[in-house]
Amino acid sequence: MIGRVTTIAAHLLTVGDELLTGDIIDTNTAELAAFCRGLGIIVTRAVSVPDHPREIADALFRARDHRADLCLVSGGLGPTTDDRTAEAIAAAVGVERVLDPRAQELVHEAFTREAARADVLGLDGDRLRQLARAPDNQDQARLPVGAEAIPNRLGTAPGFHVALGPSAIRPANLPGGDHRTRIVSMPGVPAELRAMLRGPVATLTRQWFGAALRPLARRIYRTIGRGESALAPAVERAVAATLADDAAAAAPPVTVHYRAVGPEVVITLETVRPAEPAALGVFDAPMHRALGSYLYGIGSAGLAERVVRVLRERGLWLAAAEACSGGALGERLVAVSGASRCFRGAIVPYDDAMKTQLLDVDPELLRRHGAVSAEVAGAMAEGVRRCCRADIGLAVTGIAGPGGGSPHKPVGTVEFAVDASFAQRRLRLVLPGDRRAVQRAAALMGLKLLWDVLLEFGHSRVFDLALPSGSGLE
Amino acid sequence: MIGRVTTIAAHLLTVGDELLTGDIIDTNTAELAAFCRGLGIIVTRAVSVPDHPREIADALFRARDHRADLCLVSGGLGPTTDDRTAEAIAAAVGVERVLDPRAQELVHEAFTREAARADVLGLDGDRLRQLARAPDNQDQARLPVGAEAIPNRLGTAPGFHVALGPSAIRPANLPGGDHRTRIVSMPGVPAELRAMLRGPVATLTRQWFGAALRPLARRIYRTIGRGESALAPAVERAVAATLADDAAAAAPPVTVHYRAVGPEVVITLETVRPAEPAALGVFDAPMHRALGSYLYGIGSAGLAERVVRVLRERGLWLAAAEACSGGALGERLVAVSGASRCFRGAIVPYDDAMKTQLLDVDPELLRRHGAVSAEVAGAMAEGVRRCCRADIGLAVTGIAGPGGGSPHKPVGTVEFAVDASFAQRRLRLVLPGDRRAVQRAAALMGLKLLWDVLLEFGHSRVFDLALPSGSGLE
Repeated sequence: MIGRVTTIAAHLLTVGDELLTGDIIDTNTAELAAFCRGLGIIVTRAVSVPDHPREIADALFRARDHRADLCLVSGGLGPTTDDRTAEAIAAAVGVERVLDPRAQELVHEAFTREAARADVLGLDGDRLRQLARAPDNQDQARLPVGAEAIPNRLGTAPGFHVALGPSAIRPANLPGGDHRTRIVSMPGVPAELRAMLRGPVATLTRQWFGAALRPLARRIYRTIGRGESALAPAVERAVAATLADDAAAAAPPVTVHYRAVGPEVVITLETVRPAEPAALGVFDAPMHRALGSYLYGIGSAGLAERVVRVLRERGLWLAAAEACSGGALGERLVAVSGASRCFRGAIVPYDDAMKTQLLDVDPELLRRHGAVSAEVAGAMAEGVRRCCRADIGLAVTGIAGPGGGSPHKPVGTVEFAVDASFAQRRLRLVLPGDRRAVQRAAALMGLKLLWDVLLEFGHSRVFDLALPSGSGLE
Repeated sequence: MIGRVTTIAAHLLTVGDELLTGDIIDTNTAELAAFCRGLGIIVTRAVSVPDHPREIADALFRARDHRADLCLVSGGLGPTTDDRTAEAIAAAVGVERVLDPRAQELVHEAFTREAARADVLGLDGDRLRQLARAPDNQDQARLPVGAEAIPNRLGTAPGFHVALGPSAIRPANLPGGDHRTRIVSMPGVPAELRAMLRGPVATLTRQWFGAALRPLARRIYRTIGRGESALAPAVERAVAATLADDAAAAAPPVTVHYRAVGPEVVITLETVRPAEPAALGVFDAPMHRALGSYLYGIGSAGLAERVVRVLRERGLWLAAAEACSGGALGERLVAVSGASRCFRGAIVPYDDAMKTQLLDVDPELLRRHGAVSAEVAGAMAEGVRRCCRADIGLAVTGIAGPGGGSPHKPVGTVEFAVDASFAQRRLRLVLPGDRRAVQRAAALMGLKLLWDVLLEFGHSRVFDLALPSGSGLE
């Protein structure tokens, strides 16, 4: 794509009517894309089509004609009548579907496994043994002739791979005329897809493409609290100056990518050619200067993961009082494995009376300043720290909307407070967006205030936190 | 697609390198697809391409050659160097980009609006006034010749629409040779996209296609607690029997679609031809019989929305104690506008000591039965009901993993309890999936237990709850 000699290119194809009706958000494309990036495979296109054999086949032909080496397909392998992917792939390859002995074995194993699991749990294992013999479930073992089955550790439908050969109607001497694309068909259930990718499909992909897989290096700078437009000029200057000033020519040429998710902007520097990831470290100091305190970390670990790590390293216990965010802050923390050793818990005093009853907030403060005020946030942080016997109390109280705003305190106004033996902090923000956006941003900005306090008091440093991702492929 | 005479067909195109690297989950495709479905436009394909003018143009040509009437594009309109969509659309149409006076006006208005907002909030409005004059931001007003600007109420980059005319190299008498596709280019920031779709783009689309827009009717049956494979046979039988038994021929032919999201399976019946939505009501009773207590409602409102509605109607106050879910249950409730009139709040006793301190759980119960036990769940539900002075206490405690499991209580074991003056209920489940999946499913299954209690005691009926969606387009 950028003039390199050998790259492995992939198309991604997600199949399902529900992807084109707005009923579901397609997370599988991102899963497939992360898999490819981790192996150094360039994704040139991602397509979603309905459960229609003609549309599925058209997308496969497109991948072949664009000379994609690989077409990763997910969805449409289940037992129900709207699952048409295997049929469509067989038609595209120009073969029949037949009962595949290995696939039959895998389907049988899957039902046996699930039935045994159900027995242990006192559930109805026999129902599953009966379902295994249903024609719809046997249908999951009918693969295109020439395909090889791929085990599905978490579900009943096996995956398979098969080669899509040269086009019968396109002469071999025209562009794409002699190209073969490896089609890998996987289930659409996200957990099943993930397990299949990381296990057997990663192994197969390495066998097929071996030394040609050379990942580009990338480095991720994570910021929160300022928009892309405001950050970009300083970032562009920092990158250009680093490349220009680099006497030792150690700084590799990079492209810069931005993505905004709620209050966060994640900036990725990616090398133009395959390189050692460490070579990008030369950008850290200039990026830190350009981004200032909006930068909270380097690497793919998110804010909650970093907060949990620092709290655990320092032996600090946190408790949270979150009103408008309703539990979103606690949810983010407990999503991190190990949170149980630094997070006492949270109190969600959604009703104002709870602020007094559970957190000992002086009713007079509530009356005088209102529930969304620096005074009440401070009292909530102190209250939750005490009643949970924590080292640090973190409080969030705000107006998520759509009602409840006023000229002085518009919808989106959120008050934050941190209360610890070593620090008291207050912060007021007006967060943009609808109710959900305000609630989610409030949880994140609360963690950011805590993060800033941890930095200020030397519990952490931005450069300590070039954490690798937990994705398993990086 | 299904042989109807007039349908309006659309391709969707989302643009951005980050969509093909796995860094971001594309939610815009679902937003665009829901917009189309609401208007009766059939989406035949959704494509994501990198910020590469050649790839963008190729996808546009594909939409035209597939005779799509509309190609809705999002992303790549921002002010940074990797925003290439306007350039690519101009190249595809075969025109230059020029400063568009209307677009300039819109960019100027947007910065003025944001600066005024910043002034009111005591932020740095002058910085925004300065940014408005930056060349990168002026660049957002350079549109393809012939395009018309579309206002962006929430951001600085205007959208635009332009016609992609017949192919210069494909003779007019070949398929697709005389076809025009309307391209609508919108920003990639989700809130900006949503506002633009629901406002100006909905108006334009109705102007363009008018009477040809005839939405298919659909009816959504929402279930939780049993998988797609297990539900499908009964559903297929119920639908077939309803159509066969229907002496009055009032039941319209339908297609059945399933989607599994965590522990939920949402089943959609969609008419094959445009129809009145009420005609599908004939399937309600048979579907209810087929799905039994796994069915919690009809319509697009989710479980939390229904729970909030019933609690408010009955004047009941809820409080939650959630350990393993960390706040996820509370977050789902407060996401519903109006939760403040039925939800006192939650206690998240993540650390076991909190269960005793905050919820008055007898330490002897914890010692004897463990934190994940029916006894402790019951005591938590009772404790949270009392200390929050609620009518109903709901408790969730479990082992989210990856550690903490045992043969007797494997990872995924979750105990639920409801405590109210009129009912006490306990439930034990072993939920599948990783830590996040268990935490999310625990929050939902807790709401389901509460829902079942509300049904059992006559506070609600499934058929009361054919709620319309809040999406604004249905």
